Amino acid sequence: MEPPGPLAPPAFAVRAAVRRSLAEDLTPLGDLTSALLGPGVSARATFVPRAAGVLAGTACATEAFAQLDATVAVEWSAADGDAVTAGQGVGRVEGPLASLLGAERTALNLLGHLSGVATFTARYVEAARASGGSARIWDTRKTTPGLRALEKAAVRAGGGSNHRGNLSDWVLLKDNHLARLEIADAVSRARDRWPGRTVHVECDRSDQVVEALAAGADAVLLDNMTPAEVRACVALADSDVARGHRSRRVLLEVSGGVTLESVADYAVTGVDMISVGAITNSAPVLDIGLDIGLDIERAD
Amino acid sequence: MEPPGPLAPPAFAVRAAVRRSLAEDLTPLGDLTSALLGPGVSARATFVPRAAGVLAGTACATEAFAQLDATVAVEWSAADGDAVTAGQGVGRVEGPLASLLGAERTALNLLGHLSGVATFTARYVEAARASGGSARIWDTRKTTPGLRALEKAAVRAGGGSNHRGNLSDWVLLKDNHLARLEIADAVSRARDRWPGRTVHVECDRSDQVVEALAAGADAVLLDNMTPAEVRACVALADSDVARGHRSRRVLLEVSGGVTLESVADYAVTGVDMISVGAITNSAPVLDIGLDIGLDIERAD
Amino acid sequence: MEPPGPLAPPAFAVRAAVRRSLAEDLTPLGDLTSALLGPGVSARATFVPRAAGVLAGTACATEAFAQLDATVAVEWSAADGDAVTAGQGVGRVEGPLASLLGAERTALNLLGHLSGVATFTARYVEAARASGGSARIWDTRKTTPGLRALEKAAVRAGGGSNHRGNLSDWVLLKDNHLARLEIADAVSRARDRWPGRTVHVECDRSDQVVEALAAGADAVLLDNMTPAEVRACVALADSDVARGHRSRRVLLEVSGGVTLESVADYAVTGVDMISVGAITNSAPVLDIGLDIGLDIERAD
Amino acid sequence: MEPPGPLAPPAFAVRAAVRRSLAEDLTPLGDLTSALLGPGVSARATFVPRAAGVLAGTACATEAFAQLDATVAVEWSAADGDAVTAGQGVGRVEGPLASLLGAERTALNLLGHLSGVATFTARYVEAARASGGSARIWDTRKTTPGLRALEKAAVRAGGGSNHRGNLSDWVLLKDNHLARLEIADAVSRARDRWPGRTVHVECDRSDQVVEALAAGADAVLLDNMTPAEVRACVALADSDVARGHRSRRVLLEVSGGVTLESVADYAVTGVDMISVGAITNSAPVLDIGLDIGLDIERAD
Amino acid sequence: MEPPGPLAPPAFAVRAAVRRSLAEDLTPLGDLTSALLGPGVSARATFVPRAAGVLAGTACATEAFAQLDATVAVEWSAADGDAVTAGQGVGRVEGPLASLLGAERTALNLLGHLSGVATFTARYVEAARASGGSARIWDTRKTTPGLRALEKAAVRAGGGSNHRGNLSDWVLLKDNHLARLEIADAVSRARDRWPGRTVHVECDRSDQVVEALAAGADAVLLDNMTPAEVRACVALADSDVARGHRSRRVLLEVSGGVTLESVADYAVTGVDMISVGAITNSAPVLDIGLDIGLDIERAD
Amino acid sequence: MEPPGPLAPPAFAVRAAVRRSLAEDLTPLGDLTSALLGPGVSARATFVPRAAGVLAGTACATEAFAQLDATVAVEWSAADGDAVTAGQGVGRVEGPLASLLGAERTALNLLGHLSGVATFTARYVEAARASGGSARIWDTRKTTPGLRALEKAAVRAGGGSNHRGNLSDWVLLKDNHLARLEIADAVSRARDRWPGRTVHVECDRSDQVVEALAAGADAVLLDNMTPAEVRACVALADSDVARGHRSRRVLLEVSGGVTLESVADYAVTGVDMISVGAITNSAPVLDIGLDIGLDIERAD
Repeated sequence: MEPPGPLAPPAFAVRAAVRRSLAEDLTPLGDLTSALLGPGVSARATFVPRAAGVLAGTACATEAFAQLDATVAVEWSAADGDAVTAGQGVGRVEGPLASLLGAERTALNLLGHLSGVATFTARYVEAARASGGSARIWDTRKTTPGLRALEKAAVRAGGGSNHRGNLSDWVLLKDNHLARLEIADAVSRARDRWPGRTVHVECDRSDQVVEALAAGADAVLLDNMTPAEVRACVALADSDVARGHRSRRVLLEVSGGVTLESVADYAVTGVDMISVGAITNSAPVLDIGLDIGLDIERAD
Repeated sequence: MEPPGPLAPPAFAVRAAVRRSLAEDLTPLGDLTSALLGPGVSARATFVPRAAGVLAGTACATEAFAQLDATVAVEWSAADGDAVTAGQGVGRVEGPLASLLGAERTALNLLGHLSGVATFTARYVEAARASGGSARIWDTRKTTPGLRALEKAAVRAGGGSNHRGNLSDWVLLKDNHLARLEIADAVSRARDRWPGRTVHVECDRSDQVVEALAAGADAVLLDNMTPAEVRACVALADSDVARGHRSRRVLLEVSGGVTLESVADYAVTGVDMISVGAITNSAPVLDIGLDIGLDIERAD
Repeated sequence: MEPPGPLAPPAFAVRAAVRRSLAEDLTPLGDLTSALLGPGVSARATFVPRAAGVLAGTACATEAFAQLDATVAVEWSAADGDAVTAGQGVGRVEGPLASLLGAERTALNLLGHLSGVATFTARYVEAARASGGSARIWDTRKTTPGLRALEKAAVRAGGGSNHRGNLSDWVLLKDNHLARLEIADAVSRARDRWPGRTVHVECDRSDQVVEALAAGADAVLLDNMTPAEVRACVALADSDVARGHRSRRVLLEVSGGVTLESVADYAVTGVDMISVGAITNSAPVLDIGLDIGLDIERAD
Repeated sequence: MEPPGPLAPPAFAVRAAVRRSLAEDLTPLGDLTSALLGPGVSARATFVPRAAGVLAGTACATEAFAQLDATVAVEWSAADGDAVTAGQGVGRVEGPLASLLGAERTALNLLGHLSGVATFTARYVEAARASGGSARIWDTRKTTPGLRALEKAAVRAGGGSNHRGNLSDWVLLKDNHLARLEIADAVSRARDRWPGRTVHVECDRSDQVVEALAAGADAVLLDNMTPAEVRACVALADSDVARGHRSRRVLLEVSGGVTLESVADYAVTGVDMISVGAITNSAPVLDIGLDIGLDIERAD
Repeated sequence: MEPPGPLAPPAFAVRAAVRRSLAEDLTPLGDLTSALLGPGVSARATFVPRAAGVLAGTACATEAFAQLDATVAVEWSAADGDAVTAGQGVGRVEGPLASLLGAERTALNLLGHLSGVATFTARYVEAARASGGSARIWDTRKTTPGLRALEKAAVRAGGGSNHRGNLSDWVLLKDNHLARLEIADAVSRARDRWPGRTVHVECDRSDQVVEALAAGADAVLLDNMTPAEVRACVALADSDVARGHRSRRVLLEVSGGVTLESVADYAVTGVDMISVGAITNSAPVLDIGLDIGLDIERAD
Repeated sequence: MEPPGPLAPPAFAVRAAVRRSLAEDLTPLGDLTSALLGPGVSARATFVPRAAGVLAGTACATEAFAQLDATVAVEWSAADGDAVTAGQGVGRVEGPLASLLGAERTALNLLGHLSGVATFTARYVEAARASGGSARIWDTRKTTPGLRALEKAAVRAGGGSNHRGNLSDWVLLKDNHLARLEIADAVSRARDRWPGRTVHVECDRSDQVVEALAAGADAVLLDNMTPAEVRACVALADSDVARGHRSRRVLLEVSGGVTLESVADYAVTGVDMISVGAITNSAPVLDIGLDIGLDIERAD
């Protein structure tokens, strides 16, 4: 048994997602079809991606078999974050055939979805990197309900970074807040009420960026701007440092409708982060199959 | 308050998904930013799709606000299953601004994901229908863990049909079962052990279809076949009826790698159902926003 | 809406049992059949026992409809603990037909099971009372897992009394404890470790009763004795009072294999309580149906 | 440790039922009485039925001890589905005496209840078989709330078959649906909305059976008919095959008030299935005790 | 692995409290800081109290590490109930450093809080004992929501006794009940409705004590009386025995505002129990740290 | 019904805490004593603090009654965060007496504990303010397991500020991390892995503060220093600004053993925040009672 690695989601999140998934796939009668197999049939099986991608969710797949039948053994030859190729065996499972089949879909749904998130993230990361720019990919709170911890871990596996985890992490003043509060006042209230927290300001226009810089924001979200507009805002932020107003440049985020096609254009503008909701809410599955081999005999 | 409509998922599934989503977005401190707004600020807001699609998940969005703050009122002008256009107001919310913002992401994540499933389903349904064939779109068990009931309801909203709900619904003899059991024997065991249940047989080749027909299967899954191979199998099934072996043709399902491009080719083969895992595990989100309007005053 | 009455189980126990029951009856797709009904069909229905008995579980039945669809109205004309006759309308439900049918089985399973417990209890109570003796009927911890609070409330509805609720209520020294501890020592340890709690001693023989009396036990369980043996033990306990050793006689319980046939023989022995596991673990259901009437129209 | 066998309920259902049962028996203080025993007392115990019957629920009993104290060892010499006799040792437990006593009632309540279901089922199965007819016993949805998966597994252990697991399995058109829909229309809607699913029609009269056959129903429920009426319906269904309308006869179910006395009369009518709610909602417990032996010493 | 000892709380209560605590400390992203450590860093750590006290909660601390990472080993050199000194190593943990740090706060919060309860209890116990009186310390239902089972176990570890566990244990007639019922009537109703249960009566004045004794109460709570008033009531209860009204004196409890300063004055009055809400709702934490040592190497 | 105010904890946290508390107080039989009251007895009651303090937890108290009996009405005349005095009526409850008594302890335990946290926080806040310094009080992660969201809200009610909510909020490099990583390297890794997050460095000595400032930390925790040592570190941080290295001074936190006696000495050193674990893990309860008045009559 291996300890959880640095890219792993918290164990309780893994356990809860698997428990819910098995329950919805097996309530109330269990696996009708596999019950037709005679008793004592055991098998070995291999996880095999049908396409290239980045692996994520191995802890979930392991947990799916463990919860259904503790006698099943799972062993991985690739880990979360590894690039995998079509046809490559990435893990093996061995145990009663009925148990393999009963947990297979839960394991594959989690593995495929999370590897899909990691793979889609990696495509954005690669596109940004290939541009020669230094901007990195940030996820968002646009995650699948109930799976945030797992999807955010999959983003890390894909080379992306995690934006705030939830509404409780840091302050992000958006248009709806700023329609009611001046930027300077809002930043000041945030510092006062939530000392120590990142204060992040959404800006639609460069004059708002000027305000946010003057107010001492820690990060600025440039919302729905063109690459040219973004460059102008980067220049504002750089001059803020040049004029000695701060030693470290404000963190600059681009957000809003960035696609695989446009990400390179933004990546070279000089911003720090490009946030992409699609990597968590629109990632196609990475098709991974479980190839079940010949029956084996197991001594008791 | 309206009773749940015929396309609605079970109420307990809605409640549970919303509870989990709010907890992951607000643990442990709640919404730091909205707490900066003064007390007593109320607002009205409108759900507005940013692209055309099919709506699903309205019960989830309603529930998100209700769980966070029972004083929020939600009213819909479109229902699950309705085609909606970009810019169309589909529902309204009214209540304390902090409550609108605190539940907004949970509501939109569910609404966008489920409408995404409905919309992607509708594209397959439309493509099949446009072919002139009569085949219909079936979902699979390739759903997002924890959201099966909601996604299967979204498939219905998109005009698709629900395949078996889980392993406990009916018998589906797949390659891994049939590597260990003869088709005739397997069907017979299934009838014996699970009387009354649909017995469905996966076939990779036409000789297996012959066997499945002879065994009296209720449904046959044609796995990874070309349209031409599928047509040959349809002919086999039709002749089974013609020869008086059964009054109603075996249900024929095509499965395996069907895409938006290829679905029409299969839809005209004469099969009944085309199952598509992508509609639940690879549907891009339908981007729906919550446009928050001017502040309103509310009497206590 | 009525407050919970004195025979009602705790509200959280009702809610939890109903939640579990609806989930197991509707996961994952809901009620396939009722979805075939057109929208907007509403109906009235009446709960009607098919046999005479004692009603219990009305709060559960109400909750079942409320959890599925809050627009359903439920009204009772009989209450937990009431004797009901075959054919008598005991409650009415009104709402969308699909909601009535979706919650019907959950409501009836709980109502029928709990009324079954109340009814079976009432038969023992009646048999004891008819004997002319003063002994009363006690339940046990032999309850259905997950339903203890509900079944113990049903016992009260049937005129029975609740023995200890669980292992945490009071001290009951059984044969397995007394094989390792002297009665006097065990009672003394119990008084010392758990001051204020009832200390109850199981006795197989009259010499043990003598010991238990001397040790100051609060209650004595006479295990698997004949009515004659029980009478002898009653005499011992009475003389304990007569000799001024205590002002209130030790509570005497008969336990072990008492049946509807034998209960009268024990009820006249002078004991206080006769405990019967069968009233909770072997009570046949009280058959109660839901007669659904003509469709009604409902204004929104 | 053994993998789950083919008659076993899903592991998560076992775990959840045991967790609830232990909580209700030990909240909040645990087992007051066993805490009086000195530390370090270990024992061996044997599960012994007090009456003959069919065993079921062994996985639950094992789980009860495991959840309370992972150092307890449980070993079975009989399995779910085995016929057992009064006095036969069917399993052994060994561990700290306080742990044996703390989980005993949870283990026995589940074991006794589920074996009771299996045993009562077996009596119906035997009565049907002894009649010389070929009809088999079907359970219903009349299960104990929260225990459906376990009870349906117990029915299988007793030789019965599982009817639909819940409302989400297949379509069963009952009188309340058919009061609003014509049979032909209802079957057609069901095929359309829920392709692949069993469509089952409840009939009170033979003319409805004719309609159901014509509509192509997969199964017909003959509700509350006399054996003679049932025979007439069997003849109708047979002639449907004889006339070449279908290759396999419609599945015929008898339902409604069948008792141990009347089951043979129905079993010889030629129907396939006889459904009996009583096997799950009125099964008396199979009395199984835990005989705790002499203390043992255990090395650490 | 050790079986649970006699002072341990029920295992399910431990598991649930730890699960909730880890979830609130790690949702949604896990431990950001420890993820910065390189992989494969393992360490040993020692639990060290910073002040003298009584240990409690060791099972919770063990469980915290086990739930986060099953490869972590925990070993205790002191047990619940042991007096520990500042600087004493009371337990050791070994495993991946990131896992130690991720569960550290959950483990210490539970260990510190429960040891705080045990320690504060022990101070009252000691003060009562030092007075030369025989009165003992009783806890109350004034426990921290969600932690009752754990806190009541900690009270036992500190040498205190557990009053009733909850409202379901025994009957305690308080002022609000007695404003509506005569004492004699209330006791009689309690005996009738809840046979076998302790009947406990709260008295504010000595004339009520007389009534309660006459009514045959099992225990009397002397509410908010001075030591002199208490002595008078003790005399009344003693004379009840002297006059042969009962063989065992009614259990006498003092309650209401007893402090560490005043407890001795009450302990010498002759009462049996002194109940103190503060030991569970106002106990300061016992500061226990986890001293993490040099890195270790671990073979796989 | 009022919407949740800005100091309120998330609604789901309130609901969950109340559900657990009611379950542990009423499992399995409910409130034995109140069941002795006749039916139909209703009453009004008033929440009255027995000592002065700061109120918190009103939403929990409201929820306790609502969950037990939805017919109970609760109304508050004081709100979370209000200073209250001994004897002041702060809220009223009206409903069936048995429901008031059944939920009373749950309501008071939560109200008393959370008001205790608010009150203890307010004492620290007041002591810091009275010193004339500008330092503010910060809570810690030393909260009661299961109650973090509620206690952190109570800290806000008491005038304190919330430090990070959990391990997932921001990066706090502690001694155990810094034993393995250089400060500069650790800060750089944190910026790289978790862009946008606060990076906070624990320092035991002034040379570490110099390193942390040079590394660009956002916040520095001064651990276990004397006021004089703290002043020296403040000077270092001020000079960092004076030399133009940053526009906003690093946030300075004092932590470690600060007491009500010593807090003023630290508050005047010029630091921003003083963190105090005691306000959440050692706050004595604020004694609040529920004074139940005369019976009232209620029309149905």
